[in-house]
Amino acid sequence: MIRKVDHLGIAVRSIEEARGFWEALGLAIEGVEEVPQEKVRVAMLRCGETRLELLEPTAPDSPIAKFIEQRGPGIHHVCLASDDLAADDARLRGSGARLLRERPTPGAGGALVQFVHPKSAGGVLVELSQGGHGE
Amino acid sequence: MIRKVDHLGIAVRSIEEARGFWEALGLAIEGVEEVPQEKVRVAMLRCGETRLELLEPTAPDSPIAKFIEQRGPGIHHVCLASDDLAADDARLRGSGARLLRERPTPGAGGALVQFVHPKSAGGVLVELSQGGHGE
Repeated sequence: MIRKVDHLGIAVRSIEEARGFWEALGLAIEGVEEVPQEKVRVAMLRCGETRLELLEPTAPDSPIAKFIEQRGPGIHHVCLASDDLAADDARLRGSGARLLRERPTPGAGGALVQFVHPKSAGGVLVELSQGGHGE
Repeated sequence: MIRKVDHLGIAVRSIEEARGFWEALGLAIEGVEEVPQEKVRVAMLRCGETRLELLEPTAPDSPIAKFIEQRGPGIHHVCLASDDLAADDARLRGSGARLLRERPTPGAGGALVQFVHPKSAGGVLVELSQGGHGE
């Protein structure tokens, strides 16, 4: 079952350039971490029960670099927090949705994650996560 | 001050086609309303303290129809709930951000709303709202 929007992933060319707008809104960067397997640096801003994650590519072949090249910076994905990712994974498969991994696997921050192909989710790249970030 | 992500606006060609995926995740449509001034029908799904809003164009010249034509369906905007929209409006202007309305004005559901131009928000269309939907 889905509990909340865990985070919104926002593709940015540069965290240093992008942060000013969000900080003018009173949102503060709580931490920056590098995720080498995704070739991004991630700046996390708390917004209620959700995080905004500014995703800056660290290499030209980063998926985020390719996204920015094709569509410009902007919202890249939404991550929904699940209470039972194995069950959500199975139910989605049963409904015919195409999932990007064979099964939920560990992602950044210690969470289990799965991704839904945008073609199965109305053009939205949906990440599902369980646990991680101290939850 | 920003309290939370109020809602995510997701452009869809058809609510009837799009709803199946979100319902397979256990999210339920709580209501559908027509917003004539935006030329959309809006289906609202609760997800923790946030709503997902499926936005279906009701006319070919709807801003959502144009978005879908140019980029395909997907996440259209994020709306952040403000405690004091007049103050956030003033602070953003002071930071040099370009806002789409001269001042916060009434939107759908009785909220006061303002929009930030995506060029000022790293490619993200940001709506800010205060009140509305019974809050």
